[in-house]
Amino acid sequence: MRKKKIVIALGHDALGTTLPEQKLATKKTAKAVVDFIKDDYQVAISHSNGPQVGMIHTAMAEFCQNHPEYTATPMSVCSAMSQGYIGYDLQNAIRTELLNRGIYKTVATILTQVTVDTYDEAFYHPSKLIGRTMTEEEAEAEEKKGNHVVKTEQGYRRIVAAPKPVEIVEIDAIRALLETGQVVIACGGGGIPVLVQNNKLQGASAVIEKDSAAGRLAELVDADRLVILTGVEKVCLNFGAENEQPLDEITVEQAKQYIAEGQFGEGTMLPKIETAIEFIGNSAVRSVLISKLGADGGDGMEMTGTIIRK
Amino acid sequence: MRKKKIVIALGHDALGTTLPEQKLATKKTAKAVVDFIKDDYQVAISHSNGPQVGMIHTAMAEFCQNHPEYTATPMSVCSAMSQGYIGYDLQNAIRTELLNRGIYKTVATILTQVTVDTYDEAFYHPSKLIGRTMTEEEAEAEEKKGNHVVKTEQGYRRIVAAPKPVEIVEIDAIRALLETGQVVIACGGGGIPVLVQNNKLQGASAVIEKDSAAGRLAELVDADRLVILTGVEKVCLNFGAENEQPLDEITVEQAKQYIAEGQFGEGTMLPKIETAIEFIGNSAVRSVLISKLGADGGDGMEMTGTIIRK
Repeated sequence: MRKKKIVIALGHDALGTTLPEQKLATKKTAKAVVDFIKDDYQVAISHSNGPQVGMIHTAMAEFCQNHPEYTATPMSVCSAMSQGYIGYDLQNAIRTELLNRGIYKTVATILTQVTVDTYDEAFYHPSKLIGRTMTEEEAEAEEKKGNHVVKTEQGYRRIVAAPKPVEIVEIDAIRALLETGQVVIACGGGGIPVLVQNNKLQGASAVIEKDSAAGRLAELVDADRLVILTGVEKVCLNFGAENEQPLDEITVEQAKQYIAEGQFGEGTMLPKIETAIEFIGNSAVRSVLISKLGADGGDGMEMTGTIIRK
Repeated sequence: MRKKKIVIALGHDALGTTLPEQKLATKKTAKAVVDFIKDDYQVAISHSNGPQVGMIHTAMAEFCQNHPEYTATPMSVCSAMSQGYIGYDLQNAIRTELLNRGIYKTVATILTQVTVDTYDEAFYHPSKLIGRTMTEEEAEAEEKKGNHVVKTEQGYRRIVAAPKPVEIVEIDAIRALLETGQVVIACGGGGIPVLVQNNKLQGASAVIEKDSAAGRLAELVDADRLVILTGVEKVCLNFGAENEQPLDEITVEQAKQYIAEGQFGEGTMLPKIETAIEFIGNSAVRSVLISKLGADGGDGMEMTGTIIRK
């Protein structure tokens, strides 16, 4: 019998930022994640890396300033480092939780690159704030390097494009590990964004939206379910208003209708719903669960939250 | 037919330190590595990380000093980050070189942890210098944290134990990728050293000698050949003396004899020869090639260098 395949996308809440936070958060996250892992399930996990890659990027930028023999470290390289930083704690927390429940599975982190399209419209409309807040002087220096900078309420920040994920370079590695029943951590931080230049891959000044990358991963491994763990327990209509209405189950058609009504916040719920619609497509088998980390339930297929199906 | 399996261990020369150096070095290294990759070979690659983990450790230490909201980053975490930093460039350089030669194989980096024994004698005799040179003041602060520090000619340096590798935590992941013919980068920097504490793994203040970890990897995947690429083309008797004698082929028995004669430098050639003896053991199939990166030859089984066999 074909085994059930689940892809789980973890948001910021699941991981913390500093090392002590991350150790604590991944321990809690592991409990929720292992609720989804049955002996005969195939499970892949992706995660955000915003605060972590920000920390690493700032640390490396300051280091290069103080030690001129080192050159600046591009975001793509910081992203690779953050996959190691997060994967290490996350895989160990999940491993321990599995062992505590008597489940023996290897948990492995695959350094993952995701290709993006040079002509993706997103490159003409950078939308993702990254890195720390800068002074006007630092912002000017940044712009001279060819990077985009915007003014925010707190000061200046770098802004990069958020193009769509196209291919996952290491997809065969991910598939091979799933096939042998191992738990795979992949596409951390949406994956390292790369552009294809003949036989070469070139790091891109961009950030791939992590839910979008998780959706693409779910598609490419032909998952049955994509689980997006975020800050809210259910998708809501009229979110935050008096007549807020949590949703238990919606269809792809309804989801499209709600998008047209402008129900979902850009950069928060909207990309999750769009990812869900794209992943499910015309499939009667595929479904998406949007839920809060640690929400009640215990079975990956029964957990509380909002289910989206065709 | 059973496929030939090769494990390749890359030394410092193969990788450089700073980002531009690393980009250049991995490109050259990839050419040498791909000489060993035939369509029907299974290839795993491990590498050193000394200068890189030193750079990351210093960057994170300075960052934590300047931003007290962040705590210090232990060596084990820096090692995880360095596996991402190096793996990213190394896997892409190898991928490009493979494609240039018309070979289609996924190259993937597995974040790797290696367990060490709490009672390993090495913990009583720290021997591995790590991190940057410190002032006396910094050295005292380091000792207050419980770390060992020694005085060198240039100043003070941290010194940690170099225990033997016991188990590779992600060995099943490495095996699964080899089975499907993918090129695997694993055990970077000798692997993140961890201690087993019931169901938990705890990062150890230690560094596993990278040749030793590569030898253990070769053993655990049952490789036919371990290739150690280093700074010299051949193992020599009377190294550096007038009557220096390069060796083309030696037996395990001869190797043991030469060790007894004190022919090999501690911390340089000795651990390589010891690794070779342990890996080959009683096997008539296994062999070790010690050679220089980029030495002539082109076929992994014919390359110039010193061959060690039973």
